[in-house]
Amino acid sequence: MSQEDTFKKIISHAKEYGFIFQSSEIYDGLSAVYDYGQLGAELKNNIKSYWWKSMVMLHENIVGIDSAIFMHPTVWKASGHVDAFNDPLIDNKDSKKRYRADVLIEDYIQKLEGKIDKEIKKARKKFGDDFDEGKFRETNPRVLSNQKKVDDVRHRFKTALDNDDLAEVKQIIVDAEIACPISGSKSWTDVRQFNLMFDTKLGSVNEGASTIYLRPETAQGIFVNYLNVQKSGRMNLPFGIAQIGKAFRNEIVARQFIFRMREFEQMEMQYFIQPGKEEEWFANWKEKRMKWHKALGYDDTLLRFHDHEKLAHYATAATDIEFNFPFGFKELEGVHSRTDFDLSKHQEFSGKKIQYYDNERQESYVPYVVETSIGLDRMFLAVLSAAYKEETIEKENGKSDQRVVMALPPAIAPIQLAVLPLTKKDGLPDKARAIIRELKYEFNCHYEEKDSIGRRYRRQDAIGTPYAITVDHETLENNTVTLRDRDTMEQKRIDIDKIPEILREKVSLNSLLKKLDE
Amino acid sequence: MSQEDTFKKIISHAKEYGFIFQSSEIYDGLSAVYDYGQLGAELKNNIKSYWWKSMVMLHENIVGIDSAIFMHPTVWKASGHVDAFNDPLIDNKDSKKRYRADVLIEDYIQKLEGKIDKEIKKARKKFGDDFDEGKFRETNPRVLSNQKKVDDVRHRFKTALDNDDLAEVKQIIVDAEIACPISGSKSWTDVRQFNLMFDTKLGSVNEGASTIYLRPETAQGIFVNYLNVQKSGRMNLPFGIAQIGKAFRNEIVARQFIFRMREFEQMEMQYFIQPGKEEEWFANWKEKRMKWHKALGYDDTLLRFHDHEKLAHYATAATDIEFNFPFGFKELEGVHSRTDFDLSKHQEFSGKKIQYYDNERQESYVPYVVETSIGLDRMFLAVLSAAYKEETIEKENGKSDQRVVMALPPAIAPIQLAVLPLTKKDGLPDKARAIIRELKYEFNCHYEEKDSIGRRYRRQDAIGTPYAITVDHETLENNTVTLRDRDTMEQKRIDIDKIPEILREKVSLNSLLKKLDE
Repeated sequence: MSQEDTFKKIISHAKEYGFIFQSSEIYDGLSAVYDYGQLGAELKNNIKSYWWKSMVMLHENIVGIDSAIFMHPTVWKASGHVDAFNDPLIDNKDSKKRYRADVLIEDYIQKLEGKIDKEIKKARKKFGDDFDEGKFRETNPRVLSNQKKVDDVRHRFKTALDNDDLAEVKQIIVDAEIACPISGSKSWTDVRQFNLMFDTKLGSVNEGASTIYLRPETAQGIFVNYLNVQKSGRMNLPFGIAQIGKAFRNEIVARQFIFRMREFEQMEMQYFIQPGKEEEWFANWKEKRMKWHKALGYDDTLLRFHDHEKLAHYATAATDIEFNFPFGFKELEGVHSRTDFDLSKHQEFSGKKIQYYDNERQESYVPYVVETSIGLDRMFLAVLSAAYKEETIEKENGKSDQRVVMALPPAIAPIQLAVLPLTKKDGLPDKARAIIRELKYEFNCHYEEKDSIGRRYRRQDAIGTPYAITVDHETLENNTVTLRDRDTMEQKRIDIDKIPEILREKVSLNSLLKKLDE
Repeated sequence: MSQEDTFKKIISHAKEYGFIFQSSEIYDGLSAVYDYGQLGAELKNNIKSYWWKSMVMLHENIVGIDSAIFMHPTVWKASGHVDAFNDPLIDNKDSKKRYRADVLIEDYIQKLEGKIDKEIKKARKKFGDDFDEGKFRETNPRVLSNQKKVDDVRHRFKTALDNDDLAEVKQIIVDAEIACPISGSKSWTDVRQFNLMFDTKLGSVNEGASTIYLRPETAQGIFVNYLNVQKSGRMNLPFGIAQIGKAFRNEIVARQFIFRMREFEQMEMQYFIQPGKEEEWFANWKEKRMKWHKALGYDDTLLRFHDHEKLAHYATAATDIEFNFPFGFKELEGVHSRTDFDLSKHQEFSGKKIQYYDNERQESYVPYVVETSIGLDRMFLAVLSAAYKEETIEKENGKSDQRVVMALPPAIAPIQLAVLPLTKKDGLPDKARAIIRELKYEFNCHYEEKDSIGRRYRRQDAIGTPYAITVDHETLENNTVTLRDRDTMEQKRIDIDKIPEILREKVSLNSLLKKLDE
């Protein structure tokens, strides 16, 4: 199955079972906005809890806050978002369609590289074992010509970006004869910078109303509260402030399901440190964050670092934790060493002194920051896509069967335990519900009596429930049930009293946190 | 202490200890927007968990979702918000200040009623026991004249609202000679309806951009997902969908701290039922929701129902659960019987059939809805203000001492246990931290070694930590600690191994949920 097919199946599975719905679907949807359904909401909450508790409960010196989406507009002046949080856009004059200029150019380069690949493939097929790709690339005129185009455009585009030269960006598009994918027209407007922040008016529409922005990131809510938290919480360096919350970006090209949305959620932690200790803490958080992901059962085939070569002028180091999504390795989380850039900017723009008095060093300074920033929706997609499995099951009668199983990490699965009475009569439903009554305060349980046991197991597999217990007539006699394991499909008879203990060990968030903390 | 003073003290306490900060405070704040600090975020999360778990985990037939803030604009056409979610506004021509016309008129009525009260008070003082208030009201010319004004304005205003007659609303203001509170001027513009929804542009600012709204309520996110949830979750009536999320209203007059904010959070549950069963379910949810509040320890002095006399045309019943805030009894939660109004509107505007096939009745219909809707921030304010207490403590030496204690319901307190080493040496900090290491996965613990034990207890009182344990030299010998109760201030020596059991019983959310469910 191709990666693209897998991705389509995951999207459709997510809808069918109530993980993700398109926003306002009955009104034909709202582009690049999604809703979390009844299972999605639980899974998302569990990911949030795992992150929040691993930050706040496992660290004596990290606290959480919850700042508003609306902030004073000067915050975004100070952070640079008003002036520089832009995409370069260009309109086709005939189709009236708008594009990101950088995406048009990237697509053009990809097309040329595709042509080169095709030539090479053809030649390899023709020459077989004798084929020398290096030599072919150096001599084949079509390959050479296309490679030259690629190199030229790459070079010109990089220079144009470095010089913020939008006229040159347009000239590249014109010279490369890039056409509008819809109209085929090569008639383009100038390239203009377009700010990605959504704005709205606070107050009534009169001289009193002021333009405010929907925050494009949660981090600034932490920076502007640094002083309040440090003082009211009597915090000493190093300490961290964590936050989970919505952010909004008016992406022109939003793609790949919930990977890039216009409304999304971030989990960010800013760790305030002594200047000079940024290298040490950057290394520390880089390792810690990777460990957090791996505690869910993911390994190097799914996760990798991608250190940034090009850094923002104020940064001393930056890395992405990349996840192997169905469309390849992409950024899931960022760890950044940002020096005192943000706090200093707010000090400058607000006129308030944002300093920390260091008892040890006996001096005041603006703290340095190492931040960890993860997209909650991306994390959700990572979890979902790593979990999706189609399996063939050999049956005893020699036939085989198919199942779709969501092998979700048990501690964050939306439902932790399904309780299934074998039949709808003989008091089995009552017994099943009595079991749930004992467990429901601690675990998310699900009662299901429709369909055959086999079909109910399949349904629980499809929604990722790690364990199911079946209540049958023997249960009424000796207080035992059948416990079925989602992954191994093994069933074993256990005493009802053993269930809490098993769940606490296998599916509780506490046990995952303990494992992480070891 | 007056109610107003108490309220001011609560607001200042909330800031001092990190519950609530003004948004963007270093930029002099953003009006009617607040941030939750390090303790506020925990308390808010705990209130959310209490609500979510009581809905979703304690009810087999209620599921939760998490829909986006952005929705298709037609949603708000269908719901009536585009056309009718308005405040009547009027500008004073001299001061250029804008007011809500209804608030100006209400203030005018209150002022007249204040005058009447003053006359009566004066007369009662003068005549003593002989005073007959009824007769005085009927005969005193000043009282009669003011009462007539009140009655006239009330009647005219009600009629004007019923007829949507904004010219008459202005005429009332002119006739009553209402002056601008700032300039004293009586020169007013016409009254205009002003929509309370925030809008923004989705897509780039070109012909392709469309105006969308920040949702003014979370309920519609549930209604438009009704079909998806019902089908993918195989739900049968009656069943509920719960949601917690942000909503936004461009209030012109936002007041009373976090009671009425422009950005706020709702916890709403729509319960879908068979038509004809609305009375039964309305009564059921009314009682259930009151029980939820009372399980936190609040009684009739703090909570009451206020049944609505005037109902929306589609509603069959509505009640407010009112809380006794520092500024009096105000709406905290609403329970509403909304018939099939919302789903039918979405059926009409979307052209999609939104029906439920009822196996029992063998027919299809649009389900009826009973909703419960609570403001999370209001709930937070209710919890905070009910908790705030100033106490005088008699000391053994005959002197007395003051303490401020936040008597928060233990199960939702931001910190559940403080662990305090008596001194910073002799291995006591290590022992204290070892205790936290055992408990931190299950409970939110706080380590504190600064200041004397007495001051540390006071600080924990002020932030509402229900229990504190002190680790001293005896602890190292026999593994016992001193457990101090926040409310009684009693201290007793207990075995360390007993702590988890005590906390599970006294401060865990599970124990609160069990109590609620009894």
